[in-house]
Amino acid sequence: MAKINSGFLNLKENYLFIEIGRKVREYTEANPDKPVIRMGIGDVTLPLAPVVVEAMQNAAAEMGVRETFRGYEDSGWGYAFLREAVAGYYGSFGVKVEPDEVRISDGAKSDSGNITDIFAEDNIVLVSDPVYPVYVDSNIMNGKNIIYADATEGNNFSPVPPTGVKADLIYLCSPNNPTGAVFTKAQLQEWVDFAIANKAIIIYDAAYEAFISEPDLPRSIFAVEGARKCAIELCSLSKTAGFTGTRCGYTVIPKELEFYNEKGEALNVLKYWSRRQGSKFNGVPYIIQRGAEAVFTPEGQKQTRESIAYYMENARLMTETFDSLGISYTGGKNSPYIWFKCNMPSWDFFDKLLSEKQIVGTPGVGFGKNGDGWFRLTAFGSRENTIEAMKRVRELLG
Amino acid sequence: MAKINSGFLNLKENYLFIEIGRKVREYTEANPDKPVIRMGIGDVTLPLAPVVVEAMQNAAAEMGVRETFRGYEDSGWGYAFLREAVAGYYGSFGVKVEPDEVRISDGAKSDSGNITDIFAEDNIVLVSDPVYPVYVDSNIMNGKNIIYADATEGNNFSPVPPTGVKADLIYLCSPNNPTGAVFTKAQLQEWVDFAIANKAIIIYDAAYEAFISEPDLPRSIFAVEGARKCAIELCSLSKTAGFTGTRCGYTVIPKELEFYNEKGEALNVLKYWSRRQGSKFNGVPYIIQRGAEAVFTPEGQKQTRESIAYYMENARLMTETFDSLGISYTGGKNSPYIWFKCNMPSWDFFDKLLSEKQIVGTPGVGFGKNGDGWFRLTAFGSRENTIEAMKRVRELLG
Repeated sequence: MAKINSGFLNLKENYLFIEIGRKVREYTEANPDKPVIRMGIGDVTLPLAPVVVEAMQNAAAEMGVRETFRGYEDSGWGYAFLREAVAGYYGSFGVKVEPDEVRISDGAKSDSGNITDIFAEDNIVLVSDPVYPVYVDSNIMNGKNIIYADATEGNNFSPVPPTGVKADLIYLCSPNNPTGAVFTKAQLQEWVDFAIANKAIIIYDAAYEAFISEPDLPRSIFAVEGARKCAIELCSLSKTAGFTGTRCGYTVIPKELEFYNEKGEALNVLKYWSRRQGSKFNGVPYIIQRGAEAVFTPEGQKQTRESIAYYMENARLMTETFDSLGISYTGGKNSPYIWFKCNMPSWDFFDKLLSEKQIVGTPGVGFGKNGDGWFRLTAFGSRENTIEAMKRVRELLG
Repeated sequence: MAKINSGFLNLKENYLFIEIGRKVREYTEANPDKPVIRMGIGDVTLPLAPVVVEAMQNAAAEMGVRETFRGYEDSGWGYAFLREAVAGYYGSFGVKVEPDEVRISDGAKSDSGNITDIFAEDNIVLVSDPVYPVYVDSNIMNGKNIIYADATEGNNFSPVPPTGVKADLIYLCSPNNPTGAVFTKAQLQEWVDFAIANKAIIIYDAAYEAFISEPDLPRSIFAVEGARKCAIELCSLSKTAGFTGTRCGYTVIPKELEFYNEKGEALNVLKYWSRRQGSKFNGVPYIIQRGAEAVFTPEGQKQTRESIAYYMENARLMTETFDSLGISYTGGKNSPYIWFKCNMPSWDFFDKLLSEKQIVGTPGVGFGKNGDGWFRLTAFGSRENTIEAMKRVRELLG
């Protein structure tokens, strides 16, 4: 009898975005004359950079000619041209990564969900609360136990390592989704030290690193001493270069990173991740990899940086609004998310913001209990909508 | 302490293609004046169809313009335009599939490896011997027990359901990789009946269906009575349209397909597969989906059919050679693989064929014990190389 993996029965139904969708649909059907401004889902709105489009068109043309056609990529790791470009990008902000330590993927979400496959079911997983739901759900599916580190107003939504608790796998995300909080080097050092002391591995999601502008803030966990002994880093071009619908990310696993068998003997993590991917993945489309390579050229960096600057000007308009209203928030400075205190249950504020001001955001409680009373807005909209939304927020909360 | 999932320690090292690569490298280094003809790995060599290239270039252009830019695909199931095109393609050979039952993926390999995630660890997995290694390795990683159904010369490499044995998950591949054998409707009906009797689910890999030319042979398991109650079908554009480096496939799960919880209560398979993908996958690039859509247009079908006809003429030249030599083989008629009896251990024949005739093939034993004494060649090369290789095979075996 074909039976379900019972881990799936332990998942909570993920109502968050379904519920948001339902409420927005009901509102717009009842109020067709009142267009809503969407600042909920963290999707980008600016188009791909011209160099990226051109690179993909050229690659598509190559695929149409026998002499330049590409079939299977030998390893599925990602073409050397792209792994070298990623390593060079890390070098540009002072972090040393070898091209052989880079694996190209279809996005940080896939890898953050799949990476748990290589770890034992009885490994304890530590995540923050609030948290990006994928970390939780993919581990529940795999039958792992999850513990939480509180991220609250008290610690500026930057959780600290717990005391008296053991963890084997630790998910950290900085700049954080949903809170926009960014770890300092000193904060991250505490986590690295905790991981090394526990022989734990940190899965570090750096998908929003490109939004960091303050030079002292780490854009990679590998900027921190000792991290190569305890961390895997996931990154993505989704937000860096508008690849949410183009699908390309990368994962860095230091060559020396180890985990253990039952006897406590050390094994190489990169080897086993490669083995997992070798059986369950076949690489990213050649065309997409050429588009991704273009992001890392000087012209590509210039063009994608312009889009990031556009979004960060939106974020500045938003933080200016919340500053002037005297409302507590995190994010918005080195992150495209603004996470603010709404002084009522998150869903009540969602309804109020939608019905009174026609703005859609994301209720913080959807990311965990510590998110209740908080609310997320994104800076990924148009300038016009952002300005209009902030005008309405001032009316509502001023 | 971060521990490895012990399933990974039960994997055999997959030496097959690594070993082939090593031997070929050594030979060519020692004999730089003797170019080898590669008929080993099942990769295509003809370029993408012009309509596919054009569709991808147009889609890339759309992505560069704000008004037509696409971010996240809402569901990650695949755009409706492509799921409808796939359903229409099934309709073209008389099989009814709803667009809602189609999920677009980055290839049949990924889905065949990932699908096992949703099934209980104590489910017994049945595969054939010889077998495509991904089915075995992905289940060993997940801690499942595997049993084998023999595919031998005695049953023309078309295995039959075992008697007195229980199985919960059954992997079938037709046209088969590596043997090229194709199930008849009657043979497939036996498997469907067996699955229904066992409340088992068949995972049916139809990646080579486009090579079937005999109208009576089923191109989908859903051409068989009852299959919608017991089967998931995986398919791919890798071989159909030369997408090995472009990465797009599709999986069909009938809406009514069920599996069970511990209490024996029925649960919907499509729902839980969607849940798995919702957490661990984020869809196929928009650009690639537009390229895939073009495959299913009348012009796309005409152009991709020409490539398949080219490969099948190679296959005809190969079967003609083995017929004239009186050598037993399967495949080559509705499949791009020729699987022939080499009358010595497979690796010995590999060495002989390489050293004496500079042809690289795949030793059958690499796919399982029943493959020993057998050898796989592919029809995916150029006409010129195929003709030359067959001349040499006649010299060697004539």
